[in-house]
Amino acid sequence: MLTWEDIQAAQSRVRHLAHRTPVIESRQFNAEAGCSVFFKAENFQRGGAFKFRGACNKIKAESERRKITEVVAFSSGNHAQAVALNAKLLGLKATIVMPQDAPAAKVAATKDYGAEIVFYDRYTEDREATAQKLLETKPEALLVPPYDDYLVMAGQGTAAVELLEDVPDLDALVIPVSGNGLIAGCSVAASHLRPGIKIFGVEPSVANDTFLSLEKGERVTINVPRTIADGLQTASPGELTFPIVKELAAGILLVSEEELMKTVLFLLERMKLLVEPSGAAAAAAVRFKKNDFAGKKVGVILSGGNLDLQRLKEFLMSYSHS
Amino acid sequence: MLTWEDIQAAQSRVRHLAHRTPVIESRQFNAEAGCSVFFKAENFQRGGAFKFRGACNKIKAESERRKITEVVAFSSGNHAQAVALNAKLLGLKATIVMPQDAPAAKVAATKDYGAEIVFYDRYTEDREATAQKLLETKPEALLVPPYDDYLVMAGQGTAAVELLEDVPDLDALVIPVSGNGLIAGCSVAASHLRPGIKIFGVEPSVANDTFLSLEKGERVTINVPRTIADGLQTASPGELTFPIVKELAAGILLVSEEELMKTVLFLLERMKLLVEPSGAAAAAAVRFKKNDFAGKKVGVILSGGNLDLQRLKEFLMSYSHS
Repeated sequence: MLTWEDIQAAQSRVRHLAHRTPVIESRQFNAEAGCSVFFKAENFQRGGAFKFRGACNKIKAESERRKITEVVAFSSGNHAQAVALNAKLLGLKATIVMPQDAPAAKVAATKDYGAEIVFYDRYTEDREATAQKLLETKPEALLVPPYDDYLVMAGQGTAAVELLEDVPDLDALVIPVSGNGLIAGCSVAASHLRPGIKIFGVEPSVANDTFLSLEKGERVTINVPRTIADGLQTASPGELTFPIVKELAAGILLVSEEELMKTVLFLLERMKLLVEPSGAAAAAAVRFKKNDFAGKKVGVILSGGNLDLQRLKEFLMSYSHS
Repeated sequence: MLTWEDIQAAQSRVRHLAHRTPVIESRQFNAEAGCSVFFKAENFQRGGAFKFRGACNKIKAESERRKITEVVAFSSGNHAQAVALNAKLLGLKATIVMPQDAPAAKVAATKDYGAEIVFYDRYTEDREATAQKLLETKPEALLVPPYDDYLVMAGQGTAAVELLEDVPDLDALVIPVSGNGLIAGCSVAASHLRPGIKIFGVEPSVANDTFLSLEKGERVTINVPRTIADGLQTASPGELTFPIVKELAAGILLVSEEELMKTVLFLLERMKLLVEPSGAAAAAAVRFKKNDFAGKKVGVILSGGNLDLQRLKEFLMSYSHS
């Protein structure tokens, strides 16, 4: 169970370390989308994504219960950087387990935060077994899961709390969806603060595991999809997150790869914001009218901005002005 | 003469139309620069640059005195877009005079705001004569100069007013310099609100007309320089702006083309902000320690973000990760 009290507790833990990110508006975006959009700019969050919030709450809450000197995470993405950065700020050791073929830029960014990287071969080694072996030797270590954990979800929910403090009368809240940690936390927060608000998740059409799961009423596993939204490449929603989304979300909206790309470029050129494709998914769904938001006040979470210059260059080269 | 009262009057005119842009901080930037930097993000201003403020004040103030139905400006850059956008918002006709070889993207952006474009041949036609001829036929038209005008300067100064309202105890204020309109307005505002604050202008080393003018004590004209900071390509400071800068500025800092480029890329990749090279000049001077700001609280104006995707792509292609 995830409660409003869990999110309030997270708020008091996260507040001092996380940025209170700004809420941004754009008349140009509103004109195209036909509604009033309030962007919660988590691309400005520490570590470049909302993931900082959940990792922070998890580590601080568990530290209140037992002695922790080290944190461990399995990730080659924004979660790795969030855990490594929190560890650094809290004076803990961080060990991040990554596949051997993780992008060099992500490895370097995580090392920059002072973490130790342990590689595993994802074709011959089992990730869970690697985790277990590592944790057995480290009694004061804490595993920080990327989403399927109530403390992590509660931390992510603080993004919605801040957005609704700034814009209390939102009609809808639109959120990128991967393992469902962000939408689970934000749904509990937003349903409490603004009863009746409509909450939508957004997935790439090619990575529609949560969409299919809601349709079927139970968790569906798909083949790990290829999408430019590399942060949204999950095979299924979480075991603990999914029931919350099933109860509280109004639905999942789907966006194409081209819509994602166009939205990243619009946010960059017109709004001067660097947002990664995963982070732009909710904005894409609103801009391309995947639901009727006409005339409504819509909160959109820009969930992250970690797009390295090499990938940005490739995007721009594959894109020609029309 | 430009007075604090002029800037207060501008503040009351500009407030309702311009964005109050956010002040942004970055621990990573501070760590590299060795001081606490507060970025006034005028790349988020309407029209993508601070220029909106000056044009707005000029047009509204003159409209209080006489009937104006049309505005005219000579510019192929951010000033053109600022004038065109203000005209649109105030229900006026806008005519923008541009050289025939102005970049297509700038022409298109200005047309998008509803302005009429009049081209002149800069090799065979005189810009001033073109202006005069145009204005003679339009008795209800107003020429909006880019910088050498007290109402324009007063409008630009509102950026410093807002920054000092948000961060009242700045030790220094660092500002990109072209025709000196922004620094003139901000100097009058900042000197009034925070006596003793040190105000620095920043120019590209290759476009050091204001630096040379201050050294000589009078306005110096240089050959129109080539720099990636295309907004800072002026041949000399303004006739009305320069005396103000001479009186109030602590000095001009110079940055190389490479420092400008590296700063644009740092702002983009690390801080998730799209800032054009001209707009990043003050940030570059602080990051590359062109003055001793160690331990100080430094305000930096990010003066604009109009970098089209084609040029951004070229930048990224000419840049290789080191």
